[in-house]
Amino acid sequence: MPNRFSVTYRITADSDQIGPLAAALAIEQSVETPLEVANRYAYVREHMVGEVRNLLQRDETEWDVELGIPIASAAADPAQLLNVVFGNASLFPNVELVGMDLPPELLSSYRGPRFGIEGVRRLANAPHRPLTCSALKPIGLPADRMADLCYAFAAGGMDVVKDDHYLADHSFCPFEDRVRACVAAIERAADKTGKRTLYAPNLSGTPSRVRSQAEFAAEAGAGALMVAPMLLGFPSVHEILDDVRLPVLAHPSFSGALRIAPEIMIGRLFRLFGADVVIFANYGGRFSYSKEACLAVADHARAPWAAVEPAMPAPAGGMRTGRVKELVDVFGADVMLLIGGSLLEAGPLLRDRTRDFLAAVNVSLEERTDE
Amino acid sequence: MPNRFSVTYRITADSDQIGPLAAALAIEQSVETPLEVANRYAYVREHMVGEVRNLLQRDETEWDVELGIPIASAAADPAQLLNVVFGNASLFPNVELVGMDLPPELLSSYRGPRFGIEGVRRLANAPHRPLTCSALKPIGLPADRMADLCYAFAAGGMDVVKDDHYLADHSFCPFEDRVRACVAAIERAADKTGKRTLYAPNLSGTPSRVRSQAEFAAEAGAGALMVAPMLLGFPSVHEILDDVRLPVLAHPSFSGALRIAPEIMIGRLFRLFGADVVIFANYGGRFSYSKEACLAVADHARAPWAAVEPAMPAPAGGMRTGRVKELVDVFGADVMLLIGGSLLEAGPLLRDRTRDFLAAVNVSLEERTDE
Repeated sequence: MPNRFSVTYRITADSDQIGPLAAALAIEQSVETPLEVANRYAYVREHMVGEVRNLLQRDETEWDVELGIPIASAAADPAQLLNVVFGNASLFPNVELVGMDLPPELLSSYRGPRFGIEGVRRLANAPHRPLTCSALKPIGLPADRMADLCYAFAAGGMDVVKDDHYLADHSFCPFEDRVRACVAAIERAADKTGKRTLYAPNLSGTPSRVRSQAEFAAEAGAGALMVAPMLLGFPSVHEILDDVRLPVLAHPSFSGALRIAPEIMIGRLFRLFGADVVIFANYGGRFSYSKEACLAVADHARAPWAAVEPAMPAPAGGMRTGRVKELVDVFGADVMLLIGGSLLEAGPLLRDRTRDFLAAVNVSLEERTDE
Repeated sequence: MPNRFSVTYRITADSDQIGPLAAALAIEQSVETPLEVANRYAYVREHMVGEVRNLLQRDETEWDVELGIPIASAAADPAQLLNVVFGNASLFPNVELVGMDLPPELLSSYRGPRFGIEGVRRLANAPHRPLTCSALKPIGLPADRMADLCYAFAAGGMDVVKDDHYLADHSFCPFEDRVRACVAAIERAADKTGKRTLYAPNLSGTPSRVRSQAEFAAEAGAGALMVAPMLLGFPSVHEILDDVRLPVLAHPSFSGALRIAPEIMIGRLFRLFGADVVIFANYGGRFSYSKEACLAVADHARAPWAAVEPAMPAPAGGMRTGRVKELVDVFGADVMLLIGGSLLEAGPLLRDRTRDFLAAVNVSLEERTDE
């Protein structure tokens, strides 16, 4: 039937169960009543009942079930979009969201990246090479110590310095003090080097606090912002970012264990809701994602998608400068490499290690170009 | 060390891995840098590094790991609380959040249920028996047809009628029209029966829209509200409910597949963030939770918890009147039984079936009292 869009779930079930289960899920994600009740009403029967569009057997007990979900149901607001895509479906332990094919009517309601890969590259003044990023941490340092780290990164030529995602508006390091001190540090470094690092403070809290943090950061001269969409809530991120004129990094905190494929959560939802850069836990680091899963995230973040700008993938989580060449070989040049803790180990040599990081990026790109 | 609170994770790991994994998780949820970096700073070393407090082996490869997480880190705001409890931990596929022991300093920042079980009972004028609840659906009916259903439920004596969680502010059934029509239907029924059913419209959308929906509903005379905290975002729910003077039902949409034990997500987080009634997918219905898991949710919702009011558990999802006695035997009288689709099957006999539902509740209670 028309006026539906496709959502695909990976379901574990025996072959005699998958048919009824798929049919039940189509009801669960639409009218959520016995079909007999829904069918009493002509408009509901015609426009509101979900449908099973395809069943693809992947192995003995694994299936990809494509449902048709009513567009009109999803169109009301951002919470409702998540609701019809994975609301009650999330309550089934054997159901994972692995695909969604949002139609133009739905896509056009969402901001998507405002800067995208090209916009972030323009701000970083780096049209071709992989971008570099690091993080201010650990939590517990006062604003002026964070600014010292920020200065070392900036003086070493880092493209983007973000807050650790644990930095909120703490009494021992208030948001406004930190932003002011870090922006000043970046300006001091820029006076020396001519390069202006983008500083991305982390926004955290209730909608009104996050909104005022975003406004303060923009006024104070921060070059970017960071949010964790699953902590703040997608509808809140959607509304607050609508007024923001800075590129946005999205952090995956609280998102990983939702049974949504990482390429959908990070490569699609984070991007749709306005992230210009999407951070994800990379393979071979502190987390256990496979290389294939990470490539899928990067592909979904960057691939053409209607009028939605591409977002820059930022593999992170226990990365080291020694892996730069490998990561550029794997992800290509449209990537932001995020190395935090292992650079901070350098202590007083932080600026030098930052330079080494940049040098490794440049070398990796030259080598790659030769291929 | 003092100034930490306990959070417990269930981890799947071999016995030679669990020690390093627990230590790594304590770092991941606190300073997120190599320990060597954190230890350079006296304040960080003293106050900000997470610690492993206990390791309990449950079976050959399953462990409960109790960490001590810095209170000061969590205290900044509601997003930050979720962040330090299950932010990056959520990115590990073998880690589940199963316990948290929030100290008074943290608990006191949260609203908790404003009405609690006693308050909801008072509004429903039902001091002892299980409460009854049903849902307006399917999505696609216009406001006046929703109001017809609402009238039948109310005339039959239902305590609470809530919107289906798929009802948002759709053009075919606008929020304001629906609330006005349903409140009017409830008033007409109350004129006849003397009992005033509580109508709970579903709030959906961005923070500003949800806030205005809540205000409109209260002004229009709705008796309660419904939110889905995981769809809206906990920080948003926290802020918006702070101004609300109606009891709140929380719906579990989008929450189920997060690797957080249901009793923590629904029995603790939903309650902490202001739900007076917590809806959950019951055993033996359309979902696959065990009876034990459901009892754990009910226990966590109701059990004494510092100064936080108890919340009323509402088992739901494919329930029928024929199961009322069983459910009251299992959950006791402090419960709100939610039966939706199977009542709606009655069509023109909806009012009668609602009366049967109430009669079953009263009988079950008498029988239970005799035990």
